[in-house]
Amino acid sequence: MQFENLAGIHSPADIRRMTPARLNVIAAEMRAALIHKLSATGGHVGPNLGMVEATIALHYVFDTPTDKLVFDVSHQSYPHKMLTGRMQAFIDPDHYRDVNGYTNPREDADYDLFSVGHTSTAISLATGLAKARDLAGGQENVVAVVGDGSLGGGMALEGLDYGGTLGTKFVVVVNDNDMSIAENHGALYNDLRLLRHSNGTAEPNVFRAFGYDYIYVHYGNDIARLIAAFKAAKASSTPVVVHINTMKGMGLPAAESDKEAFHYSAPFDAATGTVLRRSAAGEAPADYGTLIYEHLLHVLKHDSRLAVLTAGTPGALGFTPKRRSQFGSHFIDVGICEQQAAGMAAGMAKAGARPVFGVVATFLQRAYDQLSHDIALNGLPVVIPVTNTGLYSMNDETHLGFFDIAMISSIPGLLYLAPTCREEVMAMLDWAIKQTALPVAIRIPGGHVVSDSSCELLSDYSAPAYTPIDADSEVAIVGAGTFYGRAVEAVAILAANGVKAVAVNPRSFTYIDPAAVDALKGKRLVVTVEDGVVDGGYGQRLAMELADSPARVVCLGLPKKFENRFDAAKLGKELGLEAQQIATRVLAKLK
Amino acid sequence: MQFENLAGIHSPADIRRMTPARLNVIAAEMRAALIHKLSATGGHVGPNLGMVEATIALHYVFDTPTDKLVFDVSHQSYPHKMLTGRMQAFIDPDHYRDVNGYTNPREDADYDLFSVGHTSTAISLATGLAKARDLAGGQENVVAVVGDGSLGGGMALEGLDYGGTLGTKFVVVVNDNDMSIAENHGALYNDLRLLRHSNGTAEPNVFRAFGYDYIYVHYGNDIARLIAAFKAAKASSTPVVVHINTMKGMGLPAAESDKEAFHYSAPFDAATGTVLRRSAAGEAPADYGTLIYEHLLHVLKHDSRLAVLTAGTPGALGFTPKRRSQFGSHFIDVGICEQQAAGMAAGMAKAGARPVFGVVATFLQRAYDQLSHDIALNGLPVVIPVTNTGLYSMNDETHLGFFDIAMISSIPGLLYLAPTCREEVMAMLDWAIKQTALPVAIRIPGGHVVSDSSCELLSDYSAPAYTPIDADSEVAIVGAGTFYGRAVEAVAILAANGVKAVAVNPRSFTYIDPAAVDALKGKRLVVTVEDGVVDGGYGQRLAMELADSPARVVCLGLPKKFENRFDAAKLGKELGLEAQQIATRVLAKLK
Repeated sequence: MQFENLAGIHSPADIRRMTPARLNVIAAEMRAALIHKLSATGGHVGPNLGMVEATIALHYVFDTPTDKLVFDVSHQSYPHKMLTGRMQAFIDPDHYRDVNGYTNPREDADYDLFSVGHTSTAISLATGLAKARDLAGGQENVVAVVGDGSLGGGMALEGLDYGGTLGTKFVVVVNDNDMSIAENHGALYNDLRLLRHSNGTAEPNVFRAFGYDYIYVHYGNDIARLIAAFKAAKASSTPVVVHINTMKGMGLPAAESDKEAFHYSAPFDAATGTVLRRSAAGEAPADYGTLIYEHLLHVLKHDSRLAVLTAGTPGALGFTPKRRSQFGSHFIDVGICEQQAAGMAAGMAKAGARPVFGVVATFLQRAYDQLSHDIALNGLPVVIPVTNTGLYSMNDETHLGFFDIAMISSIPGLLYLAPTCREEVMAMLDWAIKQTALPVAIRIPGGHVVSDSSCELLSDYSAPAYTPIDADSEVAIVGAGTFYGRAVEAVAILAANGVKAVAVNPRSFTYIDPAAVDALKGKRLVVTVEDGVVDGGYGQRLAMELADSPARVVCLGLPKKFENRFDAAKLGKELGLEAQQIATRVLAKLK
Repeated sequence: MQFENLAGIHSPADIRRMTPARLNVIAAEMRAALIHKLSATGGHVGPNLGMVEATIALHYVFDTPTDKLVFDVSHQSYPHKMLTGRMQAFIDPDHYRDVNGYTNPREDADYDLFSVGHTSTAISLATGLAKARDLAGGQENVVAVVGDGSLGGGMALEGLDYGGTLGTKFVVVVNDNDMSIAENHGALYNDLRLLRHSNGTAEPNVFRAFGYDYIYVHYGNDIARLIAAFKAAKASSTPVVVHINTMKGMGLPAAESDKEAFHYSAPFDAATGTVLRRSAAGEAPADYGTLIYEHLLHVLKHDSRLAVLTAGTPGALGFTPKRRSQFGSHFIDVGICEQQAAGMAAGMAKAGARPVFGVVATFLQRAYDQLSHDIALNGLPVVIPVTNTGLYSMNDETHLGFFDIAMISSIPGLLYLAPTCREEVMAMLDWAIKQTALPVAIRIPGGHVVSDSSCELLSDYSAPAYTPIDADSEVAIVGAGTFYGRAVEAVAILAANGVKAVAVNPRSFTYIDPAAVDALKGKRLVVTVEDGVVDGGYGQRLAMELADSPARVVCLGLPKKFENRFDAAKLGKELGLEAQQIATRVLAKLK
């Protein structure tokens, strides 16, 4: 075992007995172990490497688990897991997959308080812990650990604002590595920079403005200094911010120098930092990010009204740093602030620009009211490519791409298009940017890019007709979005079994084509299949339209449930979503 | 005509020619006219009375409509409407109802940029206008007008943070009347208070922290001073905040002294401020607010873990200032910060408290991600009474209570209960607070309190069975929530017409009772009726369960549409939602 000192650490109590010198040895081994593991498994590299020392100091000073640590996003919680009984998952390759990438009470009920993965929630959650403590007359400390990137999010600012009024002990550790996923955006970051450059003495001090005492630690990767600061914070009887200046990716030169690429990385060569399994140079573009970026670049050349917005995840639309600089002022990153991105996009559309707000499905949840109240109610033509959707996207319970169809479909006046292939994605995007009649979301398929040159494209998708439904098929399989391919396959299997069926592409999740409904009413059986939750999804809408007809309807898709760390192919099979399974089910029903 | 000077004002150009002295006369008449109108119609009293002078000064200084004014919430936009061609709606009683209570481009496409009614969105919307201007090389000014109460909302803070980096001209007017709907909450308000008490010189200055130049106007109801400040802001080539200290309710003594009661008021006696049509003292409690408050008070006496949270709308749960003080530290107002309220409630539940977060349906949209990611994913037993729901609640397109069923139902692990009467509301609330297994939202019925002592109550609502469905009825009418009464009535009408039908109370919008589904599959016709949008609503979920059975299903409710300023009874009739209409429809289908 190369990490000889780590194997003996089973709980924070084990480090509380150590000398500072010894803690430094532990930190060095933890960092080496993290690099070793992450190079093999991939994961959040930079955030964890930067937090090794601070995590040691936190568990050294605070009496966890009696004292409560709440990690924001919790993508920096690997060192915390190492110190709280889960070391084996970081030093034994056979156990690398034992732990979640985020805190999770189902993994550790004592030390992991919340299952979280979205930004900016820790301060609010921690105010609740502190308030409940005060009502119960408790004495435990409550510590929220939040990164600078998360701090600009509205919920974090609301939490900071409220937390400053608690009047009792409450610690917020601001882990400032001068980076979000990409670079930071927002005036707040000028303040943080001035604070860092003045050893914490600059004014205005935004934390004092929000009512906190303030402690600055310039050497945020120095355990002794961190311990001193956390001890001072622990001694305070009122809210205090400990602002620590850490280095994202510390100890891995490649991660130190390319912080964005190593925020989250696929497996890499630990010595060189070269990411493994990257597609070879010169290959045709194989991901929707690049395809969308290239299309937008083409549009921009002809239409200077185009602007592309992101809320801190430029990669979702393929915008690497180089591509961002190519777009200049036409690329806007507002920081991890989905509300601002959606509201700003609404304003831009109102003023005649053509905003495209690319957003990860699970994070769009944070702009629900803005989609409804600011964009849809005002009928503003914002274009919203929704990425990381469906089964074949992220598979952490905190980042699922299943819930978008039901969520977006619940908003009046918002069209949600359901492209089935690359050609349709591009046609829909092109149309959506050109039109100015309504807001349009487009569900970018998860998984590999599928090309279908036979796909019939429309010139207008505002109320898209379904693909033709012939009269003599007794069965129709309506495949919405990415799962249309399964409908086509199932139809072929049925044909081979002597059943005449038709595959239908509804082209959107929200528009119900009356002509198609009429045609479907005459079928013996209609099956809907979608790459999302059935409950509140597309199929259910269609089923209701057919409910007062003789046609029998079966809706297939995912259950309304937070799945965690699943194998997409396996889960799809368990749910009966494979083409063969769909066909078999149809055959059974027809008997 | 008693407002002789007002009738001649048809556009802002008309006031730009006036002397300061003359503008003061106009202001006095505008205030008198507002009081006269509002005393007759009700509406937002305090916000508009406080903004008379500032609105005059804004239109005097800025070249509207070329320059753009964006009002936050826009409940303070009546003076703006008076100056922009809509004076008659404020001085002629026959036209009092001509205008919306909020800005609305469908009312005035030139001067009203957005239809808005939720807080905290104006700065973001305005950043979009400014950015689009810059991309297009325009020169117009963009001014966001935001109240202090709105400023603490996460979206406002995100907008402020981003706006401070625009680098070009951008004006934010902070209308500080030291009040939200109720009093303000959050550390931010200490800063504003210090700024007011120091004539704008105090540090820290939160606006400078967010990158703005800063101008303070202590006499925020003095037109000449406001004009000077706005001129200075207009001359700036970088973002600037003009912080104006105004008096909410100015000119109406009752509104000046009871700012909360006169934030929004029913019609009142203009001379005394006595609100008309208030129920007589000594009457039995007639509103759900009071009933819920009384129940919670009862719970608190036995369980000190109870805490009641609001995001700036304490009135929604009946918490008057007196009742709030009764609850002491067990009543928590976080300001208009739904994200913080939901996140804090999650933290409190985690720590063993029993948080009850009462929230207006339309505003709950602002905590969608917190409901999902922080509360539901973590299975935390937060209790969420959702108020102002359905047809018989607010009827502005910005504040509709129709969309909650589809929205909440799209979130896994969140039970949404559907009480049909007062007895059921109380039983469900009581159960929800006692249990700790799951988060529970309860839809508080809109309209009058309905009592039904025959309602069969359950001791456990975690997976509530539907009320009995007898085998010999050929028709079932499933009435979810408030519309259950219509189902009962329709069944009686059908009985009188010789049709045996059964009314079913499903008790929740989210749990589908398998036994009930089995029973309903045997019916000839199932009708669902709900006081919300059909698309994504409860009936659709049930229809899908029945879609593979011979039972025909018809789902009734509201269309997925932003209705505006409707008459609830009339709209319900147009949509065929009256009991007689439901019965007639059933009879026609059975023929």
